[in-house]
Amino acid sequence: MTVQPKATGTLSSGDGARHSRIYGVGGYRPERLITNEEVCTWIDSSDEWIRERSGIVTRRWAREDETVIDMAEAASRPALEMAGIAPQQLGAVVVATVTHPYQTPAAGPLLATRLGAGGVPAFDISAACAGYCHAISLASDMVRGGSAEYVLVVGVEKLSEITDKHDRGTSFILADGAGAAVVGPSDTPGIGPTVWGSDGEKWDTIRQRRSWTQIREGESTDDVGMDAATLQMAGQSVFRWAVWSMAPVCQQAIDKAGITAADLDAFIPHQANMRIIDAMLKQLKLPEDIPVARDIAETGNTSAASIPLATERMIREGEVPRGGLALQVGFGAGLAYAAQVVVLP
Amino acid sequence: MTVQPKATGTLSSGDGARHSRIYGVGGYRPERLITNEEVCTWIDSSDEWIRERSGIVTRRWAREDETVIDMAEAASRPALEMAGIAPQQLGAVVVATVTHPYQTPAAGPLLATRLGAGGVPAFDISAACAGYCHAISLASDMVRGGSAEYVLVVGVEKLSEITDKHDRGTSFILADGAGAAVVGPSDTPGIGPTVWGSDGEKWDTIRQRRSWTQIREGESTDDVGMDAATLQMAGQSVFRWAVWSMAPVCQQAIDKAGITAADLDAFIPHQANMRIIDAMLKQLKLPEDIPVARDIAETGNTSAASIPLATERMIREGEVPRGGLALQVGFGAGLAYAAQVVVLP
Ligand SMILES: CC(C)(COP(=O)(O)OP(=O)(O)OC[C@H]1O[C@@H](n2cnc3c(N)ncnc32)[C@H](O)[C@@H]1OP(=O)(O)O)[C@@H](O)C(=O)NCCC(=O)NCCS
Ligand SMILES: CC(C)(COP(=O)(O)OP(=O)(O)OC[C@H]1O[C@@H](n2cnc3c(N)ncnc32)[C@H](O)[C@@H]1OP(=O)(O)O)[C@@H](O)C(=O)NCCC(=O)NCCS
Repeated sequence: MTVQPKATGTLSSGDGARHSRIYGVGGYRPERLITNEEVCTWIDSSDEWIRERSGIVTRRWAREDETVIDMAEAASRPALEMAGIAPQQLGAVVVATVTHPYQTPAAGPLLATRLGAGGVPAFDISAACAGYCHAISLASDMVRGGSAEYVLVVGVEKLSEITDKHDRGTSFILADGAGAAVVGPSDTPGIGPTVWGSDGEKWDTIRQRRSWTQIREGESTDDVGMDAATLQMAGQSVFRWAVWSMAPVCQQAIDKAGITAADLDAFIPHQANMRIIDAMLKQLKLPEDIPVARDIAETGNTSAASIPLATERMIREGEVPRGGLALQVGFGAGLAYAAQVVVLP
Repeated sequence: MTVQPKATGTLSSGDGARHSRIYGVGGYRPERLITNEEVCTWIDSSDEWIRERSGIVTRRWAREDETVIDMAEAASRPALEMAGIAPQQLGAVVVATVTHPYQTPAAGPLLATRLGAGGVPAFDISAACAGYCHAISLASDMVRGGSAEYVLVVGVEKLSEITDKHDRGTSFILADGAGAAVVGPSDTPGIGPTVWGSDGEKWDTIRQRRSWTQIREGESTDDVGMDAATLQMAGQSVFRWAVWSMAPVCQQAIDKAGITAADLDAFIPHQANMRIIDAMLKQLKLPEDIPVARDIAETGNTSAASIPLATERMIREGEVPRGGLALQVGFGAGLAYAAQVVVLP
């Protein structure tokens, strides 16, 4: 005899808002400025080469005692302020990061407590440079599914801590910072459908050099010590993937949002490398007059933080209209990517 | 002059299914059996003490060469099979884990590729022992928000790798394993509202002993080497929090699902400790006849994997009816928790 269910069909599921929207963004750039000149004391390179190959002029690195949670907090406060939302009104906190230096617990719960939002659901996600666009997608679905009313999304990285300063392929690119956004309910669509995916075949192209397991076991001398826990990148593979694969992803995000490229008020790609941005633009054939985020020149590649940081700057500098439409696309280790059209806060 | 938006109000957002449901679950328990006797060769303890204080008789530990991704794959295949879903039909993969041994990339993209679902959105979340119930909530919202049709949710841990074998407070509790679930669209409610939250004030009670930053800097001799990267737990604080705080959370999940405790066909709490389960039951005052998951006796505490593993066992052993209602609750490091009533696959 099999057991029979007692009360099938009686369950109710929650309901959320019809639509979702970003109500505020905020950014935090650490004080410590790292010039190309300083980078060239670590690697055999030149200011000219770095500018030409990456578009980076300066980047910011956090102080040694400055944590992912410190930076996340500093970016979250202005985002909440722009949104006009008190921390106590938050219904959840989602932190996109790969540099929180604990396997567990996540950064989220401590960040929530720091902000005065202690008690709310709070967790971290790992999707590297695509983390922010993943988290915006999740937050939007959470708001629409009724799992939370206002969601704080934070993209934050302290990449300096996992950068091998002497690695010519990464040390001039990677940087630290935090960007935040407040997502909440809306009567009209404010976050378009997310076009997202991954490519596990290219899992190796950007990664922690050796796993914690290898470092623990110390299989070979290369595997020992924390230098083995830095990032390595197959620069050219990543470059080609980003340029060739992300333009169609962007076009799909535009199409699924039910708009045309001409409707866009801004293009805010992940700030990986200025040459990737330029090459994507060529593929995408966006109208010439659309402002393009180029925050990388002064901020470097801050992974999950780069899109909200670039957004915050464009709004602050009056380059894009509040309430306008922005196409954002994140891509990086995994490989993983996500793109969506959003209404600017 | 401020820039004006071009096309406000033209954006469309996606739409998903009216409701969501779990269509299949699967589990993987590593072969290697660790008896209390073996544990007592590492710590000063006894089989009797361990059984009495934790209810654990045996636990499973993975082989050294067995990875989180290997275990996740082994749990996912039977879950897909039960759901009758081919890997190619998946729309996303969400992995809840704190023991994937890379800061980046996430396990998700590689798991997707292994399963033959390469290309789909795939990312990891960090919510410790509450990870599975967090991921079920996210997957449900993704399905209802139109971000994915079928979502593979995996809770997987190789806790043995971050366990200090000589720590009397944790070494007899922690174990390895993987559990998976396939969430998809439904015309009727199959996943009730999630009651979730965190307590960052208790961030310290279960955590990686020293941060990677501290280990990197080697501030003191205590901070050096991979032993500093093991878990530490303030057992009594966690115990009290779980017992006192989780019963009201469970009751809220029942209320929000629009049912009463008498409608439940199963109670499937995180398998943290048998005494926590018993104490929660006392607080909750569930009807006596409701089957309660007690997989911990043979499987130990597998963190994010424990609820799907326990679910898989109860279904396999015919202890609970397919299509019946189960209350599940996860809680752990963060501190973080999440509970919901689900229709059993
Ligand atoms: C990293 C990157 C700038 C390197 O450029 P590249 O053209 O691929 O460089 P290569 O490694 O092929 O080397 C080309 C030449 O530059 C030299 N070079 C490499 N790194 C250098 C550096 N930091 N400074 C000066 N010269 C350098 C090489 O020695 C080589 O010289 P050679 O032609 O005389 O042998 C490029 O691959 C890139 O931008 N990739 C994308 C990375 C990225 O944005 N990642 C983030 C994604 S989230
Ligand atoms: C870990 C746990 C079993 C320890 O039990 P406890 O009663 O809190 O143990 P304490 O550390 O207070 O020690 C009580 C006594 O047991 C002894 N003891 C502690 N660990 C022991 C062990 N592994 N074997 C034998 N004796 C042990 C202590 O020395 C102490 O002895 P004393 O009274 O003679 O001084 C208990 O705290 C617990 O279950 N906590 C919840 C942990 C959990 O489930 N975490 C997962 C959440 S996700």
